[in-house]
Amino acid sequence: MNPVAGADFERWSAQQLDRVEQALSQWVLADAPAGLGNAMRYAVLDGGKRLRPLLVLAASKAVGGQPQAALRAACAVELIHAYSLVHDDMPCMDNDVLRRGKPTVHVAFGEAQALLAGDALQALAFELLTPDADEVAPAVQARLCALLARAAGYAGMAGGQAIDLASVGRPLDEAQLRTMHLAKTGALLKASVVMGAACGAPDAKAQATLAQYGDAIGLAFQVVDDILDVTADSATLGKTAGKDASHDKPTYVSLLGLEASRAQARALLAQAHAALDASGLADTAALHALADRVIHRSC
Amino acid sequence: MNPVAGADFERWSAQQLDRVEQALSQWVLADAPAGLGNAMRYAVLDGGKRLRPLLVLAASKAVGGQPQAALRAACAVELIHAYSLVHDDMPCMDNDVLRRGKPTVHVAFGEAQALLAGDALQALAFELLTPDADEVAPAVQARLCALLARAAGYAGMAGGQAIDLASVGRPLDEAQLRTMHLAKTGALLKASVVMGAACGAPDAKAQATLAQYGDAIGLAFQVVDDILDVTADSATLGKTAGKDASHDKPTYVSLLGLEASRAQARALLAQAHAALDASGLADTAALHALADRVIHRSC
Repeated sequence: MNPVAGADFERWSAQQLDRVEQALSQWVLADAPAGLGNAMRYAVLDGGKRLRPLLVLAASKAVGGQPQAALRAACAVELIHAYSLVHDDMPCMDNDVLRRGKPTVHVAFGEAQALLAGDALQALAFELLTPDADEVAPAVQARLCALLARAAGYAGMAGGQAIDLASVGRPLDEAQLRTMHLAKTGALLKASVVMGAACGAPDAKAQATLAQYGDAIGLAFQVVDDILDVTADSATLGKTAGKDASHDKPTYVSLLGLEASRAQARALLAQAHAALDASGLADTAALHALADRVIHRSC
Repeated sequence: MNPVAGADFERWSAQQLDRVEQALSQWVLADAPAGLGNAMRYAVLDGGKRLRPLLVLAASKAVGGQPQAALRAACAVELIHAYSLVHDDMPCMDNDVLRRGKPTVHVAFGEAQALLAGDALQALAFELLTPDADEVAPAVQARLCALLARAAGYAGMAGGQAIDLASVGRPLDEAQLRTMHLAKTGALLKASVVMGAACGAPDAKAQATLAQYGDAIGLAFQVVDDILDVTADSATLGKTAGKDASHDKPTYVSLLGLEASRAQARALLAQAHAALDASGLADTAALHALADRVIHRSC
């Protein structure tokens, strides 16, 4: 139950990454006024693993979703992710100067421009989801906006960040840590899968199992992040390693230890594969391969 | 062509403000995690003139729009406005400590929580616009999200803020000042009118004239803001008076002088009334009265 990613997946993945990069470059325009466009492009282009867009596109592929809706959803999720990194790196939050091996946006463009670029990227995400009605059906647009808004907001990513802020230097138990990460990182990863599914018309069983898959990889991603924070170096990560430990933030590794954290990651990977196997969907190879990539990544 | 707001408008306005306050209090929940909900409620409730919600509701009334869609649109626009104030007041932007007579959000809750509260309010705006399909038709949801995203983003409010940032200490001519304000303040005011109209099904002429009305009051609002910045005191404004002048920001008053600015405001008011008169719509009394309120306000 652990399919090895083959050449087919690598080819599909490379093609999709090309589509996403081209679309992002087309949709995040440099001509936004007074340098804002440059800051937005800097935050979004030429960086990142594009895991969320690939999840959207793989889920859409599994359900036979409408390709243009899926491409827009893929880019919209990535813009939300990118804006969250810009704001998260700011001095009043994590105060980080390095991201994807480059100076962070506020270092390169100033704090005020970073704040605005993040704000504008969030709005642009919803703009991408709402093109003319002949490009994406209005009911699909509304559904995609609904899913993205809830994943990004107080009950999702922003809420998870608030828990994260409040948790520095405080002991959390595993249930609390899980709650924080399911919101902070997991909500948007799960939304990527569910939004991809919303580009088609999966039956109830497929919907439910894809959501389970999304939950499992969402949590697995964070467990692996915590492991990499202590085992990888900054050059490999493209961001400051060891910062959670140094900021006295609770992590899976600090709570469970390294070996138990690795076992947890493997268990979540098995859950993700099992959910796909139970989905009744035929074309889940890319989703299987992406789950593997989440767990076995080195950065 | 300058109808005096009568008792009917005052009664309607008071009723609508009650509806909006109740809806905002219901939809901006304190139970968002780790204090985030408190910061969000502090930013939104018990403050502000609610001009934008009233514009949405008045425009919807003029076109016979669906009431629940209009209430959600009214609150969504107000959340975008509220988040923009939270971020605008932060130290890296205007660094203001007083807003609506109270300490600003970052003073009361800290900078990190203010940043997150603003981010979460923007997401919540799109959440409000996308309820279950039996409450608001999906095509209306998609249209409202499209309008709000564009008004809030790089080509609207966020773009206008970027121009504003870049303009400090630099001479602008009237055309440049107009461009900045049409984006920074005007886009969301105009969107309020156009979103209200999108809750119904106005004909092309009504749509076009309502958009003209929105442009006129959007610009008029900023001209009056610039006048009040030099003529009112902080206690009346509920925010720091004279701050544009002290920050060496270009304003209508610094560019045109006080009397010419007042004449400009009156001319824009006349344009707004004329657009309504040309709309072919019967029930525009509230929109007429709101235009008067924009111009004759003292804070």
